[in-house]
Amino acid sequence: MASLTYGKYLRLKELLACQAPESAKAGRPAHDELLFIVTHQAYELWFKQCLHELDAVIAIVGADFVHERDVGRALHYLERVIRIQGVLLDQIDILETMTPLDFLDFRNLLTPSSGFQSAQFRSLENRLGLERTQRLRYNEAEYEAALDASDRRRVGAAEREPSLFDVVEAWLARMPFVRSPEFDFWREYRANVTRMLDEDRETIERKAQLPAAARRAQLDELERTRETFEAVFDPVKYERLRAARQRRLSYPAFLAALMIMLYRDEPILQGPFRLLTALVEIDENLSLWRYRHALMVHRMIGTKIGTGGSSGQDYLRRTVEAHRVFLDFFNLSTYLIPRSMLPRLPAEVREQLGFRWNA
Amino acid sequence: MASLTYGKYLRLKELLACQAPESAKAGRPAHDELLFIVTHQAYELWFKQCLHELDAVIAIVGADFVHERDVGRALHYLERVIRIQGVLLDQIDILETMTPLDFLDFRNLLTPSSGFQSAQFRSLENRLGLERTQRLRYNEAEYEAALDASDRRRVGAAEREPSLFDVVEAWLARMPFVRSPEFDFWREYRANVTRMLDEDRETIERKAQLPAAARRAQLDELERTRETFEAVFDPVKYERLRAARQRRLSYPAFLAALMIMLYRDEPILQGPFRLLTALVEIDENLSLWRYRHALMVHRMIGTKIGTGGSSGQDYLRRTVEAHRVFLDFFNLSTYLIPRSMLPRLPAEVREQLGFRWNA
Amino acid sequence: MASLTYGKYLRLKELLACQAPESAKAGRPAHDELLFIVTHQAYELWFKQCLHELDAVIAIVGADFVHERDVGRALHYLERVIRIQGVLLDQIDILETMTPLDFLDFRNLLTPSSGFQSAQFRSLENRLGLERTQRLRYNEAEYEAALDASDRRRVGAAEREPSLFDVVEAWLARMPFVRSPEFDFWREYRANVTRMLDEDRETIERKAQLPAAARRAQLDELERTRETFEAVFDPVKYERLRAARQRRLSYPAFLAALMIMLYRDEPILQGPFRLLTALVEIDENLSLWRYRHALMVHRMIGTKIGTGGSSGQDYLRRTVEAHRVFLDFFNLSTYLIPRSMLPRLPAEVREQLGFRWNA
Amino acid sequence: MASLTYGKYLRLKELLACQAPESAKAGRPAHDELLFIVTHQAYELWFKQCLHELDAVIAIVGADFVHERDVGRALHYLERVIRIQGVLLDQIDILETMTPLDFLDFRNLLTPSSGFQSAQFRSLENRLGLERTQRLRYNEAEYEAALDASDRRRVGAAEREPSLFDVVEAWLARMPFVRSPEFDFWREYRANVTRMLDEDRETIERKAQLPAAARRAQLDELERTRETFEAVFDPVKYERLRAARQRRLSYPAFLAALMIMLYRDEPILQGPFRLLTALVEIDENLSLWRYRHALMVHRMIGTKIGTGGSSGQDYLRRTVEAHRVFLDFFNLSTYLIPRSMLPRLPAEVREQLGFRWNA
Repeated sequence: MASLTYGKYLRLKELLACQAPESAKAGRPAHDELLFIVTHQAYELWFKQCLHELDAVIAIVGADFVHERDVGRALHYLERVIRIQGVLLDQIDILETMTPLDFLDFRNLLTPSSGFQSAQFRSLENRLGLERTQRLRYNEAEYEAALDASDRRRVGAAEREPSLFDVVEAWLARMPFVRSPEFDFWREYRANVTRMLDEDRETIERKAQLPAAARRAQLDELERTRETFEAVFDPVKYERLRAARQRRLSYPAFLAALMIMLYRDEPILQGPFRLLTALVEIDENLSLWRYRHALMVHRMIGTKIGTGGSSGQDYLRRTVEAHRVFLDFFNLSTYLIPRSMLPRLPAEVREQLGFRWNA
Repeated sequence: MASLTYGKYLRLKELLACQAPESAKAGRPAHDELLFIVTHQAYELWFKQCLHELDAVIAIVGADFVHERDVGRALHYLERVIRIQGVLLDQIDILETMTPLDFLDFRNLLTPSSGFQSAQFRSLENRLGLERTQRLRYNEAEYEAALDASDRRRVGAAEREPSLFDVVEAWLARMPFVRSPEFDFWREYRANVTRMLDEDRETIERKAQLPAAARRAQLDELERTRETFEAVFDPVKYERLRAARQRRLSYPAFLAALMIMLYRDEPILQGPFRLLTALVEIDENLSLWRYRHALMVHRMIGTKIGTGGSSGQDYLRRTVEAHRVFLDFFNLSTYLIPRSMLPRLPAEVREQLGFRWNA
Repeated sequence: MASLTYGKYLRLKELLACQAPESAKAGRPAHDELLFIVTHQAYELWFKQCLHELDAVIAIVGADFVHERDVGRALHYLERVIRIQGVLLDQIDILETMTPLDFLDFRNLLTPSSGFQSAQFRSLENRLGLERTQRLRYNEAEYEAALDASDRRRVGAAEREPSLFDVVEAWLARMPFVRSPEFDFWREYRANVTRMLDEDRETIERKAQLPAAARRAQLDELERTRETFEAVFDPVKYERLRAARQRRLSYPAFLAALMIMLYRDEPILQGPFRLLTALVEIDENLSLWRYRHALMVHRMIGTKIGTGGSSGQDYLRRTVEAHRVFLDFFNLSTYLIPRSMLPRLPAEVREQLGFRWNA
Repeated sequence: MASLTYGKYLRLKELLACQAPESAKAGRPAHDELLFIVTHQAYELWFKQCLHELDAVIAIVGADFVHERDVGRALHYLERVIRIQGVLLDQIDILETMTPLDFLDFRNLLTPSSGFQSAQFRSLENRLGLERTQRLRYNEAEYEAALDASDRRRVGAAEREPSLFDVVEAWLARMPFVRSPEFDFWREYRANVTRMLDEDRETIERKAQLPAAARRAQLDELERTRETFEAVFDPVKYERLRAARQRRLSYPAFLAALMIMLYRDEPILQGPFRLLTALVEIDENLSLWRYRHALMVHRMIGTKIGTGGSSGQDYLRRTVEAHRVFLDFFNLSTYLIPRSMLPRLPAEVREQLGFRWNA
């Protein structure tokens, strides 16, 4: 048997035969078309890798019982996705070395193909947890209209299965320490929030030289903050936010996430804290990539329509905010109070959150 | 005389005495406040450098006569600004290692100071060419309301002097090759545009299986493209776009910029092409930084108000698109036609665009 | 009392008065000198921040008892240092936009000051754990010869106090799980290593077509691997490596580090594993920065001597490898065996390595 | 005929079928092997792109007559290669998220394949201009020993054809302005160098408090600098440096390159200056990548031998400096003198270096 070589292992013969410029077929080779192809192929390779990692994370976090051992692995895979996103961003810099005029040399030959047809990118969005109802319609069509039958099946499957958002939400919702029989954390938290806001009110009222209008504005602001906090303590108010699509997490999951933010130094919460942070960064990076992509398309084709018939950059720009998945974890900061005002956890609770070995 | 040392040269004693955490003064030192200070100080150092570069570029391009020798230098300084912007972006990654809860440890002590009070950042915007009428109002006040008297004077001066946008526009407007007595470039360009669009129309009409509605949509799109091109050939239509604030460049400057894009390989246009490209990248990077900044603020303080009293992240997010300066150069791509359809420059014009030495 | 402003908080007036170009004083201002100053000042600001973080980490890990809660914080600070190093690297790209000829415009005015006089950089090296005996001599002088008296005191203090290397080593050395009364891990490990190497030997001997010389080479290599592994099991052999300066960690610390690498998924080892990984990355980044710095100096001044009289780039290049601190953690990979051959930890040991809460 | 889709254009079906993990075939799938494959495939895609760009640059610069128009294009392609190198560097960060233990899960299955078998990487080195005599031998064999027959042919062809170094050298050597009948630039340059060094000597001799030994050292240094400069003026001395492999460029090419560095602001030299700068950056980035790669291999497999049987990281580390191609352009800085001492070009020479249009 022939021994394994680098080229055979990586199937380089096949891989390097996949670049087939249309401009060459049309008899007028455009130097930059290879760049266009290679960049997009590099994207698709990395998308495959990201899907591989997300699948693994979903399997881990979606299990009935998530051991701490596994949280470490899930986190590790998410951090890898973050690194990959760094390269995805930089690849736009490479593609932008193609100028608009150079793109015109072969752009028409690509009609009607379009980046909207990337089944892996759609799957990625679905695996992360982008909801169908949340998706902007593109040329008044559902997103899978652009796909062929087999891609549609694949993307549809990715949509039906539990997403990363789903499994994280469920995992949070069943965290055991959020409600403890011996210690009503949230009652104490509420008391401290109230005390903090009352002190703020006094401060405002004491400011002698504050013009009346400014004082009123500040007091109004304070009352809005108070109402915002109400959602933490009152499930009914929280559900109202959800109904208005201002929040997506279930109430128990939201409480667990908030508690993780507040007591992230406790040994058992360090992993979950890092995991939530990783989700925030993935969301941030994806948004940045979307925005960067929209800028590039604008720069490349101006205000004309894209190769796929969409009014490209405009649609892309609107997805930047519309297609975000883990927004709730950004919003958690709204509900934080200073460490100095945090309820002190009773010894028995702290011990629960620690390691056996250190006990 | 004592010889120069590294420390004396860089005034390290003074420089490293400028970090004075409020939390230490308040008797409860917060570990992360130094990071907050150092990051902002690093920003201000780089802002100073960027202002230094922009001033030099404005002086060069704003001169009565801009020699090619100087275009090279101006370009060099702009490319330096682009590199600095790369670090400005990465510094957000550093600051984000401060978590929302850590920020709360000293955030209240900073009230009512605010990043909106950075006089250098406002000056930078003004030197680039951000217009007062374009600026979003923040808490219903003009942007300099947040500044103290001396900063206001300084920023005001930066606003009154010609900006980078102004001098580039004037430099473009007086480029000699755009209208040539012996060769009516734009008449030929228009003929080719018309031919191109007529061919597109035929293609659409020939598509046998195209549903009627789709055909109509495509033909409508085509007519909109035709109208868009009209602005190139008809100053009246172009001025209409300007009046609607869809374009900012004067008509002659716009034509010169378009011609630079189209014939960028001609020796004498290589420098100008690179210069316009640099402006596009500066605009892109600034937008990215603004968006990245808005995301960080959201992540850091949720939907609460900022330390300066603004509804922070929301305002910041809206400036991303509202405060762009060099948008016209992005839009130029709208008017490009494929190289194969470009009017061929007559020999005498090409020679004008070449080097004496090569002649 | 005047309220706090952004400018007052950041001491911008003082900070932005620290840039005093020598070329301006000499009456022939060089445009690029500001860049030279600002870049170096930005470095010094970040060095201050890194020292702040390292001090905190050393205090945490150097405590008599390191709670898991604290490992999380120490790790967080180290990861911040890693992010900062990313910017330190990119700042070289900015400085390199100054060309050699531009540097010559003011280079002579800086004599005899030199980057070798950065007390903070020397302190950083000392706090990380660079040893005096390890330092290359520069112009035949000890490294602090270039410093003035007060800097020398400061750097000396940083050298005498326990370094990050020291406290990490001590923390590793007293980890409780490395030797367990009920389970002789290392005996099992040795058995598996032996089995693995014996199998490798058989494989080599079975290869029919292997030329005799190649076979001998491979078998020799195998025996060297066997000897290498001996250092794990035999403290005497390990100490021999230390005496030859091929290893620096104490034997117990080395064993603990190896065990952390092998069982990093166990909940209680996830933090320590991440901490060791962070040290490896800090070492890697510092080496990269050193190499990048040497390249820049070469490019900037060719093979001439530096402003401080050193034969600059050559010395710098040799420090890249000579001044590494956490090399032992790179070398750990030498002693790993595949997971499939790892001794399975008995239930009671695993439980010790887990969380109470999950039990 | 079916219309073009994104998937068909990019041959995604074929591309995404090229990942065939050995661990899956062996019946014990290792999660991280896909990362290993995808990263290497992304490298190979970008290598293909770099070869495409280098081929174009070599064709342009290697032509009998290089028009300024073409210098712009060549530069553009080289700058693209620089951007790609940025991503090549970052991809190491991604691969390093695979830990040594994870690599062990499938490392043995890859024997004896090795990165040394990358024909495209070898071709890249050859196209840049790495010489056979310069290459370190690896396991005492020529570099192509690791390749199979067809790769060997391909790499050999890349070695025999003129490299980027070759065509740049020839292009420099025939630059017309270096020797001008009406103006003996180099005589003036030599006079100024002499004056500069004489002044330096006086300065040293005037320093009253300088100890005798230090004075002698400084004077010795000065004489060495004088000798170094002699190579500029004396072809025989220059050839001696070449014979000692301290320089590679031919003497005329060296003089042209030096002149480009000195008068880079002249319009006609701006392009060539940027081109030489791009070569320096490509060399710098490749060296960085080699060093980064060596660090990763060390971290991944310790001091064991690589999958291909080489003593991996050690060999890699030595190539960092041994395999550099454009070192001569780094060394040019050795011969620069301050702008204030530069011979002023006569009007007729300056005009030659300018644009016709500006005349």
